[in-house]
Amino acid sequence: MLIDRLIVRIRETRAPIVVGLDPRLGQIPEFIKETIFAELGRTPDAVAEIFYVWAKKIIDRIHDLVPAVKPQIAMYEQYGAAGFAAYARTVEYAASKGLIVIGDVKRGDIASTAEAYSAWHLGRTDITENPTTADFITVNPYMGFDSVEPYLADCRKFDKGLFVLVKTSNPGSRDIQDIELAAGKPLYEHVGALVSQWGEPLIGEFGYSAIGAVVGATHPDETLRLRKLMPHTFFLVPGYGAQGGSGKNLHGLWDNENFGAIVNSSRGITGAYQSGKFATGEKDFAEAARKAVMDMREDLGGKLF
Amino acid sequence: MLIDRLIVRIRETRAPIVVGLDPRLGQIPEFIKETIFAELGRTPDAVAEIFYVWAKKIIDRIHDLVPAVKPQIAMYEQYGAAGFAAYARTVEYAASKGLIVIGDVKRGDIASTAEAYSAWHLGRTDITENPTTADFITVNPYMGFDSVEPYLADCRKFDKGLFVLVKTSNPGSRDIQDIELAAGKPLYEHVGALVSQWGEPLIGEFGYSAIGAVVGATHPDETLRLRKLMPHTFFLVPGYGAQGGSGKNLHGLWDNENFGAIVNSSRGITGAYQSGKFATGEKDFAEAARKAVMDMREDLGGKLF
Repeated sequence: MLIDRLIVRIRETRAPIVVGLDPRLGQIPEFIKETIFAELGRTPDAVAEIFYVWAKKIIDRIHDLVPAVKPQIAMYEQYGAAGFAAYARTVEYAASKGLIVIGDVKRGDIASTAEAYSAWHLGRTDITENPTTADFITVNPYMGFDSVEPYLADCRKFDKGLFVLVKTSNPGSRDIQDIELAAGKPLYEHVGALVSQWGEPLIGEFGYSAIGAVVGATHPDETLRLRKLMPHTFFLVPGYGAQGGSGKNLHGLWDNENFGAIVNSSRGITGAYQSGKFATGEKDFAEAARKAVMDMREDLGGKLF
Repeated sequence: MLIDRLIVRIRETRAPIVVGLDPRLGQIPEFIKETIFAELGRTPDAVAEIFYVWAKKIIDRIHDLVPAVKPQIAMYEQYGAAGFAAYARTVEYAASKGLIVIGDVKRGDIASTAEAYSAWHLGRTDITENPTTADFITVNPYMGFDSVEPYLADCRKFDKGLFVLVKTSNPGSRDIQDIELAAGKPLYEHVGALVSQWGEPLIGEFGYSAIGAVVGATHPDETLRLRKLMPHTFFLVPGYGAQGGSGKNLHGLWDNENFGAIVNSSRGITGAYQSGKFATGEKDFAEAARKAVMDMREDLGGKLF
């Protein structure tokens, strides 16, 4: 089962780390851009190719170190259909290198609309026999169980999973997620309890469900409470590095056997060549990413396993 | 300003109606599918073309009757990049016929990720000088103001707007949206108040903001309270027809001058040829859609203007 494979890979790599692939033209080395723009012009097709080549070079240097990557579809989608195709190719390439792929798509809709999202992102359509799909996708729970339930059939059928937004790491998460309920707890704890319940029928051999949760790393006491509230829910944790989290803030995330969570870093790894202790010439951007992963593994995994 | 143009068009057409374009192969007439599948095979490209041709025929028969259409991107996205391109062509065609386009994309993410979504769906990227964009898009507020704020710059710069999910019409909306807060009101009223506040800087000449809200039509007393709580917020109302609402349930939506809302119908219009009082041969599917729009206008607009 997918969630079990993720846990096994975290153990094998000693790295509860997912590398976020959020391509931005400003962070991609000039030598990649120059060649492709010269060939294809300043077009969406060129950007799509640049994003793919960039991700491929990163993946080639980190796939043995980490269990998973998380491409952010918004970055691709902004270049329209060409970008969308590059996202699919990136998912496919990462999977071909043995990585578990978490598609950060944050879709949220109901009924046949959610089925349509699920068909392309996790499953199959009536036309495409075998599209390339991510292993997990992120989804938004605001519309309720109707907006999660349609994915569950594909999760079972194709051995896929979800990470449902519960408590995100951005400052604005206080606007709605932190609001105090009549039941005497913040909304995100209510959502967390729902996600835990939704995931109960899909629990794997290590006690974790294929339906995980996105839980930010910015408030250690909050994550500790969620960890206790959601013992069968695997956490995808944003907010490490660039967003202010660090290894010591993550203590509450882990269960007694030191798993139960995977921590994302995007710019902290893919932009390591541009600033900080691994800064280097742009030709060595993928090597700097590798060093940043090893450093993050030390910060997280070194203490855990 | 866009929101003012929408209100003027509602007045001119006497139709506070948006036609939802949610293409499903099972609801598209065989004569459209046969020709295109024969030419292009059972491929994503063929489905994309089928969806475009279908929408074009609907638009051609309803564009003089209604102010707006609402393509549902999930239906297109399930056929990958080809589908994504068909969504863009559909937006472009509807705009060319003078329709205001509400892209039902329900995106929800923060900071530079939201900027990326905004760039393609409402604005411009550094590469695409002039992409075809929707006029409004729907967005999900669960991540807070960070997930709405990045769109506001494009709303101002390119005269665009948003409809933020507040209270949806699906049964699962009770799971999270209806939850009782310590402040003694349901969550959706808190979200409604936030959306109202977020929209204050973008109010047009009729007193409505470019930042609207999605408010379901299923509970008349709820919509009445939201109408009073959010006097400057235009409502996009799902749940008419297929989802169980009808004109008499919508009373609470309208302000004293009988506007302030636009009601969506998807299958009730585009599937009118298949069942109900306008059922007809599939060759006349677009004509049945036209009759269903006129019927809906009578149910809604006939009482209002």
